[in-house]
Amino acid sequence: MSSLLSSIESPADLRQLSRAQLHPLADELRAFVIDSVARTGGHLSSNLGTVELTVALHYVFNTPEDRLVWDVGHQTYPHKILTGRRDRMNTLRQLGGISGFPRRDESEYDTFGTAHSSTSISAALGMAMAAKMKGESRHSVAIIGDGAMTAGMAFEALNNAGVADGRLLVVLNDNDMSISPPVGALNRYLAQLLSGQFYAAAKNVGKQVLKGAPPLFELAKRLEEHAKGMVVPATLFEKFGFNYIGPIDGHDLDSLIPTLENIRHLLDKDSGPQFLHVVTKKGQGYKLAEADPVAYHGPGKFDPAVGLVKPVTPPKPTFTQVFGQWLCDMAEADPKLVGITPAMREGSGMVEFERRFPGRYFDVGIAEQHAVTFAAGLACEGLKPVVAIYSTFLQRAYDQLIHDVALQNLPMVFALDRAGLVGADGATHAGAYDIAFLRCIPNMSIACPADEAECRQLLSTAHAQNHPVAVRYPRGAGVGTKVPAGLEGLPFGKGEMRRTGRHVAILAFGTLLYPALEAAEQLGASVANMRWAKPLDIELLRELAQTHQALVTVEEGCAMGGAGSAVLEALQAEGFAMPVLQLGLSDVFTEHGDPAKLLAAEGLDASGIERSVRARFASLLDNVSGLKVVA
Amino acid sequence: MSSLLSSIESPADLRQLSRAQLHPLADELRAFVIDSVARTGGHLSSNLGTVELTVALHYVFNTPEDRLVWDVGHQTYPHKILTGRRDRMNTLRQLGGISGFPRRDESEYDTFGTAHSSTSISAALGMAMAAKMKGESRHSVAIIGDGAMTAGMAFEALNNAGVADGRLLVVLNDNDMSISPPVGALNRYLAQLLSGQFYAAAKNVGKQVLKGAPPLFELAKRLEEHAKGMVVPATLFEKFGFNYIGPIDGHDLDSLIPTLENIRHLLDKDSGPQFLHVVTKKGQGYKLAEADPVAYHGPGKFDPAVGLVKPVTPPKPTFTQVFGQWLCDMAEADPKLVGITPAMREGSGMVEFERRFPGRYFDVGIAEQHAVTFAAGLACEGLKPVVAIYSTFLQRAYDQLIHDVALQNLPMVFALDRAGLVGADGATHAGAYDIAFLRCIPNMSIACPADEAECRQLLSTAHAQNHPVAVRYPRGAGVGTKVPAGLEGLPFGKGEMRRTGRHVAILAFGTLLYPALEAAEQLGASVANMRWAKPLDIELLRELAQTHQALVTVEEGCAMGGAGSAVLEALQAEGFAMPVLQLGLSDVFTEHGDPAKLLAAEGLDASGIERSVRARFASLLDNVSGLKVVA
Repeated sequence: MSSLLSSIESPADLRQLSRAQLHPLADELRAFVIDSVARTGGHLSSNLGTVELTVALHYVFNTPEDRLVWDVGHQTYPHKILTGRRDRMNTLRQLGGISGFPRRDESEYDTFGTAHSSTSISAALGMAMAAKMKGESRHSVAIIGDGAMTAGMAFEALNNAGVADGRLLVVLNDNDMSISPPVGALNRYLAQLLSGQFYAAAKNVGKQVLKGAPPLFELAKRLEEHAKGMVVPATLFEKFGFNYIGPIDGHDLDSLIPTLENIRHLLDKDSGPQFLHVVTKKGQGYKLAEADPVAYHGPGKFDPAVGLVKPVTPPKPTFTQVFGQWLCDMAEADPKLVGITPAMREGSGMVEFERRFPGRYFDVGIAEQHAVTFAAGLACEGLKPVVAIYSTFLQRAYDQLIHDVALQNLPMVFALDRAGLVGADGATHAGAYDIAFLRCIPNMSIACPADEAECRQLLSTAHAQNHPVAVRYPRGAGVGTKVPAGLEGLPFGKGEMRRTGRHVAILAFGTLLYPALEAAEQLGASVANMRWAKPLDIELLRELAQTHQALVTVEEGCAMGGAGSAVLEALQAEGFAMPVLQLGLSDVFTEHGDPAKLLAAEGLDASGIERSVRARFASLLDNVSGLKVVA
Repeated sequence: MSSLLSSIESPADLRQLSRAQLHPLADELRAFVIDSVARTGGHLSSNLGTVELTVALHYVFNTPEDRLVWDVGHQTYPHKILTGRRDRMNTLRQLGGISGFPRRDESEYDTFGTAHSSTSISAALGMAMAAKMKGESRHSVAIIGDGAMTAGMAFEALNNAGVADGRLLVVLNDNDMSISPPVGALNRYLAQLLSGQFYAAAKNVGKQVLKGAPPLFELAKRLEEHAKGMVVPATLFEKFGFNYIGPIDGHDLDSLIPTLENIRHLLDKDSGPQFLHVVTKKGQGYKLAEADPVAYHGPGKFDPAVGLVKPVTPPKPTFTQVFGQWLCDMAEADPKLVGITPAMREGSGMVEFERRFPGRYFDVGIAEQHAVTFAAGLACEGLKPVVAIYSTFLQRAYDQLIHDVALQNLPMVFALDRAGLVGADGATHAGAYDIAFLRCIPNMSIACPADEAECRQLLSTAHAQNHPVAVRYPRGAGVGTKVPAGLEGLPFGKGEMRRTGRHVAILAFGTLLYPALEAAEQLGASVANMRWAKPLDIELLRELAQTHQALVTVEEGCAMGGAGSAVLEALQAEGFAMPVLQLGLSDVFTEHGDPAKLLAAEGLDASGIERSVRARFASLLDNVSGLKVVA
């Protein structure tokens, strides 16, 4: 353990250091981040970009009394390391270990849980206004990236904060656009602020002002002039009522610390909301990550000396890749197909589609609401939009889906990636609720492919419909079925029998079909691959109800209101009053950890399904496997 | 029928008129709007504000080939009158009549259904990009109010549109801030654009330029200089990549028409996205509405010569008023209570609360996402936020509710007004889905008061909890129970028996308790007032299941995934396999019309409930009422 960093048990220790000591501390911290992420996997590039900013914020502000709200929050490893969690970094994102995001129940320094982007200004403003109401002098600081600034929510918050009188600082952590190509007008505008003489002048002026070390008041005044007049006459952020300061180099502690100290004084004088524009570099200080920040955005374990190595045997294709291939193939076949992503080109598997069909590819920025309604506008003109969006992020566009898509019954495909549990990212990224929140909406259909082949086929089916259809599929790979080359769909709204047994029938929705089949072998039960949560295959359901004494529904989604509930409703509507066991995610937020272990903990692996069925329907079952009935 | 207006069967007729004829036409149109709304009720102030703008847009643009997308859409009466629906204005907002909002299935001139704010730029951009892809030269125009511009979604769209190359015009219909006090930085900014010499200069320059009637190219050039240099050097909208033109007087056809013609030429030259800032006055041309645009925002029927008159006998208090009174009383008792509204002070009953507790009242603008997360920030600091929001608008903040509130299990109250059907506003404003989309979220509770007294009591119960609770109540008045003065709550998660009968038990969630009681009198059935959709009162449910042969659930919300589904799930979990009839809103979007008739059409009035129960459970029922079993 290096000497300075090991002495920091909390930011109070940090604040005991001299300004000169902060430089070697930042170096140690950066090395610790690289070493730590190399051992556990996790986010790297973004955390290397926030090392100095984190040191400076905790040095200048009196945390945890002052509130830091980290937007998105995957850049908080340096923050975690400095706030008493250094020794637990080896448990990062593992079951029972610390989270990859800030969490209020993990540390008092984590003032607000984040992970979905663009919430930080709203939350920090709430904290600032609460402090004001309670007569507390604390400061509230939101740290937000340039990508997150494109989400409407951030603008709603700026619009509100600009006229509020709390002690609020917004730090724009401008990542120098090193990951994705600039998207949207705001990014272009930020590039203008940084380009040419503006940024160069800013840097020089900043240096001169700071090197001269004038008294604080004078410095504040000059900084203000600098921001207001010399560099950018009236920035967009000033039009929103903020005092704009910057841009400054976010890796230069000698710029960061005095600037933040001055801002703190401005806040203490109730000078209104402050906006600091900081420029950082993703991957900073680790050459491999600087050269390829995308690859090092969220790597698995690696040897820091060697860097990432390609696996010798290519892994099974993920559902994301199956979608990406389908999208290109269908685009080839149907010139009306257009693809829309809210800033998730890589995550959603659209890199190849963009390359081959640039005129039909729309990355609208982190803007889920706009993405869906923009796609609705395309659909109104006869195009066939495919909106690729994570299940959890579709929650951001729920009203648009209801109001602009379903109500108008527009033909659109929602490719819902990361449906179900997601593993290391935890509850904030899990796609647990989509079946429940989509199936109550008229005109919507929901397909749940059981494997890779069905994923492609059901996407084709969805694309062929004349109304909105969501196809939900999980993170990672499935059982590895061979994916057909063609674009034939499966019948709309129809399931299939996969195993004929006795007494009990298991109705599987999605990829849990396979553990359900395993369990059924032991139970002697029937298994249906239902494929569609809406519309339900009523004919198949009726047949199953008539020929079995009990039914079991299985899905990787919340049990409450999910596909199992749809089965309960349909059975009652059909006049069947029979025992049904509903298996799905329980009514708690699932922790982060290994997905297989999490599914097992929820009783959704083969043995868990078998156990639950035996416990509930002991008296009905043949003892086919020779196992004792456990209930 | 006045002569000019009666000759206009479509905008093509309008475009045959001379420029001079447009002035009397606008006067006739305004008179028709006043007369029409006075007969049917509906929106008045906003429609009086768009008379000239509507005439000018249809005159200059080649509708329906060119696409007009009206944001919110309650200002489209002039548009409806000019597009072939003049004779159907007497059916406005009535069952089977035309909608109060644009609807794609009503007219080819209604290019996009609106009603929730701030969607128009996204949709119009989608249309513009589709036209470009398809090689069509059409123009797409979004007309959006200054209030709607505060929603993040509008900024997401501006951000995307500013770098896109479609033929898009955004018309900002700036209502001169005559309704609500200005909220947010953007409104303040717009006020600056309009204030003092800026606006005066703009008006004069505009007039001079236009009076001189130079050739179009010259005019365009001068207009551009005017926008770029003389009036506002670099507006916020220009930073987003738009060519900003304005502000111009939106009631002056002689400004509007040449300006729009020039903009059309700029679009035809593919000069990038255009932004026209138009200033209008709500209520324009009807003195009473000009003087009090709030009162004339959405009046019932009235005599235009007299104006609105106060009813002699005050009507029953609405649920909204019950909430408003509770909010003030609880604020008096609990200094930690804070009230948050996304720009619905009047609609949500918070006028008195703002007056009495201005420091604890937060109107954040039309910004539902920010409203919820801002409130979460307040809750983190120990305050007790009450977010007053319509059920349908909570759909806009679904992710924030899940991610920022429920996941962190913050104590907050959601006062969900307009839950269930809303009548004349129709499907876009109905609160049909909240039980389904809220109950699948861990940590959430949902209370469904049956009447005014319970509404107050359950709000108190909700406020006393240490986790998020939604209290849902309908538009308008209930049965008129006396509201207690105190702040005592009802037991958390507990229902009550209201009638003891035989064989069949009706479980009512919310205000349909009363028709359920009526039906039960005829049926001899038991009735439970369940009060909570989540958590369910399992003890009461168990008792009902044990003592009856069949259950009936009743709710004014979607049946799919709703409270009835919760009952089905709980029965199965408790091991009861018994017949249950689920009554609720069917899986279609409910049309606009008289709420009582709509409920009856859904079978959710007393006789409908009785009829459905008899049809399903004929064999179980005593024939207590002497009626024949109908099934």
